Order: sequence, then structure tokens, then C-alpha cells
Amino acid sequence: MTGVPADAPVSLDQLKQIMNEFAKERNWEQFHSPRNLLLAMVGEVGELSEIFQWKGEVPKGLPDWKEEEKVHLGEELSDVLLYLVRLSDMCGVDLGKAALRKVQLNAKKYPKKVSEEDPSSTTKDPATSEEA
Amino acid sequence: MTGVPADAPVSLDQLKQIMNEFAKERNWEQFHSPRNLLLAMVGEVGELSEIFQWKGEVPKGLPDWKEEEKVHLGEELSDVLLYLVRLSDMCGVDLGKAALRKVQLNAKKYPKKVSEEDPSSTTKDPATSEEA
Amino acid sequence: MTGVPADAPVSLDQLKQIMNEFAKERNWEQFHSPRNLLLAMVGEVGELSEIFQWKGEVPKGLPDWKEEEKVHLGEELSDVLLYLVRLSDMCGVDLGKAALRKVQLNAKKYPKKVSEEDPSSTTKDPATSEEA
Amino acid sequence: MTGVPADAPVSLDQLKQIMNEFAKERNWEQFHSPRNLLLAMVGEVGELSEIFQWKGEVPKGLPDWKEEEKVHLGEELSDVLLYLVRLSDMCGVDLGKAALRKVQLNAKKYPKKVSEEDPSSTTKDPATSEEA
Repeated sequence: MTGVPADAPVSLDQLKQIMNEFAKERNWEQFHSPRNLLLAMVGEVGELSEIFQWKGEVPKGLPDWKEEEKVHLGEELSDVLLYLVRLSDMCGVDLGKAALRKVQLNAKKYPKKVSEEDPSSTTKDPATSEEA
Repeated sequence: MTGVPADAPVSLDQLKQIMNEFAKERNWEQFHSPRNLLLAMVGEVGELSEIFQWKGEVPKGLPDWKEEEKVHLGEELSDVLLYLVRLSDMCGVDLGKAALRKVQLNAKKYPKKVSEEDPSSTTKDPATSEEA
Repeated sequence: MTGVPADAPVSLDQLKQIMNEFAKERNWEQFHSPRNLLLAMVGEVGELSEIFQWKGEVPKGLPDWKEEEKVHLGEELSDVLLYLVRLSDMCGVDLGKAALRKVQLNAKKYPKKVSEEDPSSTTKDPATSEEA
Repeated sequence: MTGVPADAPVSLDQLKQIMNEFAKERNWEQFHSPRNLLLAMVGEVGELSEIFQWKGEVPKGLPDWKEEEKVHLGEELSDVLLYLVRLSDMCGVDLGKAALRKVQLNAKKYPKKVSEEDPSSTTKDPATSEEA
């Protein structure tokens, strides 16, 4: 579909272009206003949450999940991503650049630990939770 | 930070690696369980929604937004992306591959329009809204 | 079901008790941990958002919606409420009292307008958007 | 504020009226379109999620939380409720009636357990998760 080797890393620009063509070919551009896409993304976040809702705490790597559940999870994660990419595009935001910039802001805000202090003293991951 | 040319397309793998190093260097891996990351992402979706909440309908490209508002928007979009990338990684899901696969599923489910039928007959974008 | 007259106002305590009995009778208490319920509520917020996602701006009172759509909307609004009530209960929070207290905090924070100033000068509803 | 005894059960109608007056007195009715309120509610769900995001699994009753954290939690739960009540009102939905109706639908869909079957066979709480 995109002329990119099957195992090449997937870029945000590539997904943006795919979503753009996809909408054009189906005459869906009319529906893709920023707030429509935002609400669609919230809908997908809801579907993602449903996968985890009755499971209690889940260990990293999901060792006990069936292959079928993991495939479903990949689909819901993808739906969130695809709408996020499309929303960014319709807002005129270069999501890849914005993400790299945000990482650098976070790195300044939260310098690497150099000492051997007690990690439990950090009670929250502050990387993105305080910019409100 | 990553040894990648400044204008190279940003890939999901690249962001995954950055987030991985970032967490390791700060001793945050202990906090990054799947459900913690999911809730953190929901928090960021909330912050993104706050940007749009009192605005009524917003045209594509956000022509009337101040530069400062667009920068803020880029940060919140990025926060959602970064947690989504990290969540996928902690679940053992290759997000880029999953997204390409999902696009192909969508393409099969919703073939391109070939005829000149009334676009308004499609009352919803079905690409991702019916997989629940 | 509850021995309350059909047209009596529905209270939060009443819903709490109904949800409590409902879970007990089905042996679902084991699933109703705070974070499980929170994620279930996020799932319902997603379903609610799906109803609005492709509609563009929607006028108050939903004058053009079919009766069937409004019934569906009422169900999704209710699902959010029922999980919110249950989540509050499982956290030991008296939701009704908390809500009245929050309204009073808001009233102090945002005094009534007495003068005839330009309402458009208030660009956002601040009642609940700044307590983060 | 409402002429209701301090320990009377708080009803949804009462909250609806309070929110209605509150908006009127501040000239905020102009902002309270359905989708604005929905996005505002999503914002509050995000703030609620932030409270739980780095905590891992949390036991019922939140035995280890500080009083101050519980008060904050009550405020965020209330914010979600208040916007939900206002959104319902602006959509012309009687939230209390809708909720009682939804409970009855759920009761039909998921009859009480009468036998002593293995509760773990029910792997999800189906009460509200399948109406999508």
C-alpha cells in the first residue's frame, strides 16, 4: 500500500498519509473535523479501557493473555493511534516533531537520577502529569 | 538525543526507545505497569479535551488559534502519544505493525467508493467505530 | 424494586443501594475494585462519546434526534452514572454530600455576576476546569 | 442554598436545579452546549484518572489514603457528576428516570444467581459493558 519495505520502521508521517488517502477515497473528509475526531478517539480509548476493566492489575508483557486477546488489544491501541494521528493532522500539528520536542521538555524538567537515592521517594511519574 | 537527522521522519520504534531509556534513567520502570500507563493516558486525553471544551465547533487547521495555544495543543497530543507508545511496549505489542495491520483490516471492511453516490448517505465514519 | 413512588426524585443514595444489591445478588463484588470500576466508567464515557462523534455541533435539547437515539443516549448517560455511583461507594465517598460541597466551593470561587459586563469576556466556564 | 435539610438524600433533580441556577447567574448558559459539556466531562474523568494513575491496584475503602487525598477524590468524582447532570439536562434527558430504567434492563439481562455455581465462571461484569 505504501511502497515501504515490510519491516521498515513505521513513521508517524506514513500513518498520516495513509489516513489522509483513506479518508479521501471514502469521502470521509467531511466528517473529520477536530472535535469529531477527538470524540472518536475518546470512543476508542473507551474500547481500550474495556479490555482491561475487569482484570485487576496486569503484569507487563501480559503473560497470561490468549493470542486472540493480544490481537484485539493491538487493534484498539491502533485505533487510538490512528485517530490521534488524524486529529493532529487536521489541527495542523506535526505530531512527530511535537513528540520529540515534548520529550526534550520532559528531560529538562526531570533530570536523570545520578545518585543512589531511594526510588520510592518518587511517588509519581512526573513526566507528563503536571503540565495541565 | 537519538542520533537521527533533525528532519528524518519520526518512527514509533524511535519513540519507544526514547521512552524506554527515559524510564530507565529515572527509575520509573516500577511505575509503568499496563493499567498505570492506561490511566495516565486517560489523564492526558482529559487534558487534551480541556483544550477543546468551551470552543464549540473548531475548523480544520485551527485558523484562529494563537501560536501559544497550538504549541500547548501539540504538547497534549504528544503526551497521549507517548503514553500510548509506552503502554503498547509494556504490553508487548508492536504498535507500528499493529497500526498497519489495522489499516488493512479497515480497507477491507470499507472498500473505496467507486460510484458517485451521495456521500451524505454515509452518516458515520465506520473505519474504527464498530469493532467493539 | 425499591418501594419508592414512581415519580419521587431519584437520589444518589437510592442508586447506591440498588447497585450494591445488584452486585451482591450476582456475586460481582469481587470485580468491583476501585480501578476496575474506574476503567469500566471510562469505557462507558467512550460509548457516550461515540453517540456524539460524527455529529458536529449539536443544539441543546437535541431537536433533530430520533426518539430511539435519545433512549440510547439515556442508557449511556445512565451507565456512566451507575459506575460513578458504584465507584464512589467502593471508595467510601458520599457522592451526594461531596457534590453539594463542591458546588459551594465553586460558588465561592466564581461569585455571581452583579454588573452588566460583557459575558463574552469570560472565555471559559471555570466552575470545574481549574481544580487540577 | 437549596432549602433542603442538610442530611436529606441528595437527588439528581436537586443537582440539576443547582447547576441550572449556577449557569444562569454567571451567564454561562452560552457555553453549555452538549458537546462542550461532554468534553468538559471527559476532562474531569481525566483528572479523576490522574488520582489513581500511579497507585497500582487500590483496595476498597482506600484504607491507606490520607484524608486530604480522599477529599480531593470526592471533588473529582463530583466534577464528573455535575457535568454529567448538566449534560443530561441540556440533552433533555431525565437522568434519574433513565438510570432506574437502565437498572431494570440490566436486571432482566442478568438475572440473579440462584444456584451455587462457580462465581469465577463469570469473567466480566456484564451489567453495562455490552450495550455498545
